[in-house]
Amino acid sequence: MLDRTPAPYRVFTDRDVVDHLGDLPRIRGILGGAKGEWRVRDVADGNLNAVFLVDGPQGGVCVKQALPYVRVAGESWPLDVNRATYEAAYTRRLAPHVKGLAPEVHHYDPEQFVIVMEKLEPHIILRRGLIAGERFPKAPEHVAEYVAQAAFRTSDLAVPFERKAADVALFAQNLALQRITVDLVFTDPYVEVWRNKVTAPLAAWAAALRADVGLKSAVAHFRLRYLTSAQSLLHGDLHSGSVMATPDDTRVIDGEFALVGPTGFDVGNFLAHYVMAWYAKPFHAGAHGAITAYRDAIADDIARFWLTFRRRFLEIWRDEDASGDGLPPSHFADPAGRARLETFRQAYVEAIFRDAVGYLAIKTIRRIVGYAQIADFLTIGDEERRAEAQAGALALARALLKRPENFPDIAAIVDALAYFEGAGLDPKRAPA
Amino acid sequence: MLDRTPAPYRVFTDRDVVDHLGDLPRIRGILGGAKGEWRVRDVADGNLNAVFLVDGPQGGVCVKQALPYVRVAGESWPLDVNRATYEAAYTRRLAPHVKGLAPEVHHYDPEQFVIVMEKLEPHIILRRGLIAGERFPKAPEHVAEYVAQAAFRTSDLAVPFERKAADVALFAQNLALQRITVDLVFTDPYVEVWRNKVTAPLAAWAAALRADVGLKSAVAHFRLRYLTSAQSLLHGDLHSGSVMATPDDTRVIDGEFALVGPTGFDVGNFLAHYVMAWYAKPFHAGAHGAITAYRDAIADDIARFWLTFRRRFLEIWRDEDASGDGLPPSHFADPAGRARLETFRQAYVEAIFRDAVGYLAIKTIRRIVGYAQIADFLTIGDEERRAEAQAGALALARALLKRPENFPDIAAIVDALAYFEGAGLDPKRAPA
Repeated sequence: MLDRTPAPYRVFTDRDVVDHLGDLPRIRGILGGAKGEWRVRDVADGNLNAVFLVDGPQGGVCVKQALPYVRVAGESWPLDVNRATYEAAYTRRLAPHVKGLAPEVHHYDPEQFVIVMEKLEPHIILRRGLIAGERFPKAPEHVAEYVAQAAFRTSDLAVPFERKAADVALFAQNLALQRITVDLVFTDPYVEVWRNKVTAPLAAWAAALRADVGLKSAVAHFRLRYLTSAQSLLHGDLHSGSVMATPDDTRVIDGEFALVGPTGFDVGNFLAHYVMAWYAKPFHAGAHGAITAYRDAIADDIARFWLTFRRRFLEIWRDEDASGDGLPPSHFADPAGRARLETFRQAYVEAIFRDAVGYLAIKTIRRIVGYAQIADFLTIGDEERRAEAQAGALALARALLKRPENFPDIAAIVDALAYFEGAGLDPKRAPA
Repeated sequence: MLDRTPAPYRVFTDRDVVDHLGDLPRIRGILGGAKGEWRVRDVADGNLNAVFLVDGPQGGVCVKQALPYVRVAGESWPLDVNRATYEAAYTRRLAPHVKGLAPEVHHYDPEQFVIVMEKLEPHIILRRGLIAGERFPKAPEHVAEYVAQAAFRTSDLAVPFERKAADVALFAQNLALQRITVDLVFTDPYVEVWRNKVTAPLAAWAAALRADVGLKSAVAHFRLRYLTSAQSLLHGDLHSGSVMATPDDTRVIDGEFALVGPTGFDVGNFLAHYVMAWYAKPFHAGAHGAITAYRDAIADDIARFWLTFRRRFLEIWRDEDASGDGLPPSHFADPAGRARLETFRQAYVEAIFRDAVGYLAIKTIRRIVGYAQIADFLTIGDEERRAEAQAGALALARALLKRPENFPDIAAIVDALAYFEGAGLDPKRAPA
């Protein structure tokens, strides 16, 4: 390798993918056979990157390359390719703690910004499964375990502050995608900008959100927390499109938005996408009884995700030495102190829930009146009917932000799903 | 310079100081004359570093070198010399905003970890002035202006999040001195460790603090905020020993503990040292009437520091475009929104006050039962009398942590000074 000049970055063709993998002995071993026998498929599905599946006689890999622009927008919207470096670092940072819940990274190339990872098969994107009405009964618990491990193991509860500071210093440089979050999640939905996609039937709702000082105040609170609360290493974009699943196996992918931030951001984001799936479901094809049963299952998923996260987070904390600098065991070593520690744990996880409720609402709003919309709703072709589905989700989101005291626990949110359904296209007449 | 090999780090002698400055044309210009005419004085006063004053025929400079150990402890307590790099970076980061309130940095040498800066004359360390009973009537306002500028200009209120992230990424590497804060400020005072210096008359108070689950719970809250709240760039060690003053001029020095953290940490620390000066004062030499008048002046300093910080922070915020990502003006552009912005400002500064109250208490406790004690008390030679002075401060600190609701504003704290005076050496009989 000594006499090799670093190759300039280029957007990979199928041929480039094969050549790149051919230089990697470990990958050659996984694929087997000769380069000519490898089959490459472009399977890009998300908004940002190029993704290829490569199959050889013995096995397959997934190849993800960061493009220098937003894939779905094209070259007019440039985007820093270094995001791939942070995705690789994020995935490797969490690997010891979330074994089996994320794809294995085989190789990262920092010149081509290419991650070569485990090919997941027969996994599908969870969102597609939810739209198709397929059941992934283990996904909520699996993702909850993933988030609980990440939330605890990378926090000041678990590690010396120097270890957390290393994560902070690294991911504080992952700016391009955090800028997208600041703009597309926290800013655009509440002002009129070209990127927002508001259908005509939702115009009154979008205007009501833009005019609602109380709601925007709640958004400002959670926005400042996103920017200032360095609680744990986050995925940063944890929705049903960032999860691949089979009925038995679940993997979290696409950690390129990673940052050290408030734990509830990931929790709320994942909840939001189940909530939106629930509101979208009656407008998808299917027999009435099957739709009803499937929605009940989604409602159950919502509760199980939170309750599993809560239980596992507390279990991990109780079982660990918890040798982090955040809460020194030496200060709470006697019986009264140990009792107080349990009070802290309950309060800590309750604070995560409060954050999650806020981010659930904010992520819901941005998916409905912002730029990056989701297939759960977009597959409802008729804009009027789609807006009916979306209005229920918006009404719930508004209530979560403006009346958080009405939602003391996950049961209250599950209960409220049906209450806000049928909120209708006039936000003034919708339940508040 | 091309053929110069970087000099290996060495602890400077007077001779090394002269040779080092002789290589710097700008410093030669400041000092004037020939190297042989320069006079070097070792004036180290703080706990950590070597400090020299150098005078030439035309002018003087101050030379500060980070030693590879804690100066007052010796080589048995090693300390990373890179702290000087962060001090230089901190000082330069704030220079545009605190002009005239900090010494000018003339030169930084990252190989010898030497900062060459403006010589302050006839300034003295504020703490010495307080002990001597000299008045520095402008110091509270000046330091308040310094803290208000730093707190606003480096926060998400003022700058794009990318700019703040650069500070976060840099100062998240300033670990050696943050470790000292975590250990000496937040941990040691509440356990028995060799570094604590507890005099015999204070043994009951120290034991009471170690046994007080409620108090340690409050400390844990503020400790976690220190570790996780990335609000603004902090000095990190802002006490009366980090301020040099004349009756008209005030400069903040020694930013080597810099971190991005909760704004109230600096505010509370500075308040704590005025509070301790108030409790120490009757035990210093002086006529009764003069002592009483001086204490009233210190009480006034405490109120003026906070009220000036509060007023200036709000003024800067209102007068600025406030173009940071923390609170987008576009969301609050109409009259109701502008009114809400003012509500946010009041709530934001109130939250800083709540933090400051906690850190005031924690910094007080650590200076009395921890390792790094202060001359305000140490100059009281008789340990019993010193402990009487310290017990008042400890009783106030305990109340601030356990009954914060009793201290809604700075006036309540000033009022409470005399209430807790004479708390005595038995913490069970002291007012709570």
